[in-house]
Amino acid sequence: MELLKKRIREDGIVKGNDVLKVDSFLNHQMDVALFEEIGKEFLRRFDGCGVNKILTIEASGIGIACVTAQSFHCPVVFAKKSRTKNIAGDVYTTKVESFTHGQVYDVIVSTKFLGSGDKVLIIDDFLANGAALEGLIDLVNQAGAELAGAGIVIEKAFQPGGKRLRARGVRVESLARVKSMDEESGVEFVD
Amino acid sequence: MELLKKRIREDGIVKGNDVLKVDSFLNHQMDVALFEEIGKEFLRRFDGCGVNKILTIEASGIGIACVTAQSFHCPVVFAKKSRTKNIAGDVYTTKVESFTHGQVYDVIVSTKFLGSGDKVLIIDDFLANGAALEGLIDLVNQAGAELAGAGIVIEKAFQPGGKRLRARGVRVESLARVKSMDEESGVEFVD
Repeated sequence: MELLKKRIREDGIVKGNDVLKVDSFLNHQMDVALFEEIGKEFLRRFDGCGVNKILTIEASGIGIACVTAQSFHCPVVFAKKSRTKNIAGDVYTTKVESFTHGQVYDVIVSTKFLGSGDKVLIIDDFLANGAALEGLIDLVNQAGAELAGAGIVIEKAFQPGGKRLRARGVRVESLARVKSMDEESGVEFVD
Repeated sequence: MELLKKRIREDGIVKGNDVLKVDSFLNHQMDVALFEEIGKEFLRRFDGCGVNKILTIEASGIGIACVTAQSFHCPVVFAKKSRTKNIAGDVYTTKVESFTHGQVYDVIVSTKFLGSGDKVLIIDDFLANGAALEGLIDLVNQAGAELAGAGIVIEKAFQPGGKRLRARGVRVESLARVKSMDEESGVEFVD
């Protein structure tokens, strides 16, 4: 998606060789006009797949997921990161390791909002190691729902998540795939 | 907002006299078509106020804030709950006590995304004790930004937050104000 790559080149900040800060438009301050274009692009890629639910994980996926859901005319469910062991009511639970925060979270979704009739599109802002995405796929499987695929805004293609998930047969559509980056020359994308 | 009150009456679940679960459409599963109507109603109430930025707090405010921002044609900034003491870079910090989780959070916003040129509309899903909203107002004040007001989806008018903040001169616009509730008779709204 050229508009997104252009924005990353202009406003993304590279730290070292693996940190890409896009908090001015994607995941702290959020440019909802850009999100609308992102949502349309996800629809173009997953149109006709019968998606009836979008699943994301708090917090930075929620805005993109909600604006994307307007294009799909379906509801969003966001998985919650939980630090308390027992949640009232019935939930699907999985564990997700955050490499950024060096922590393992329990991630939960109420059984009321994900089930065998659902065809799910997972939306998230970043794909790197793939831990969050694998956790969300686990929740979809526990629910007996069908997975249409994953729509990712920025994939760090030099990290192993995308490759591993595609090898498992998951359809992963990333709008910008970063091949490499450094502080001097900036971001290089996969063609 | 009649559409919202109707939805709360139909799909809200009352527990005891003070818990209102609206997780089927507002803050776990999210009905983005309803969010569009909510966003239009916030615009109707704050139109002409010169709002150029919407501020919310993770996680459940983000979806509503993003869809509302489409009506205002402005970006969203979401305040982050932080458990780590020192964040890289310059941030405004405040403390918010969560009565639901019995915890005090540091809540932060990067100084890059809130400043003296901003006219801020705060958006959140619930107002009860007002702790989150007071924290967000503190961040706006630290930034030297101007506060247009707060747009709240559901106010528990029997709890003290709304009254205290209005007494301080904050413009609080709540789309559904709950006067009282119980498990048998359901939710009663302030006229």
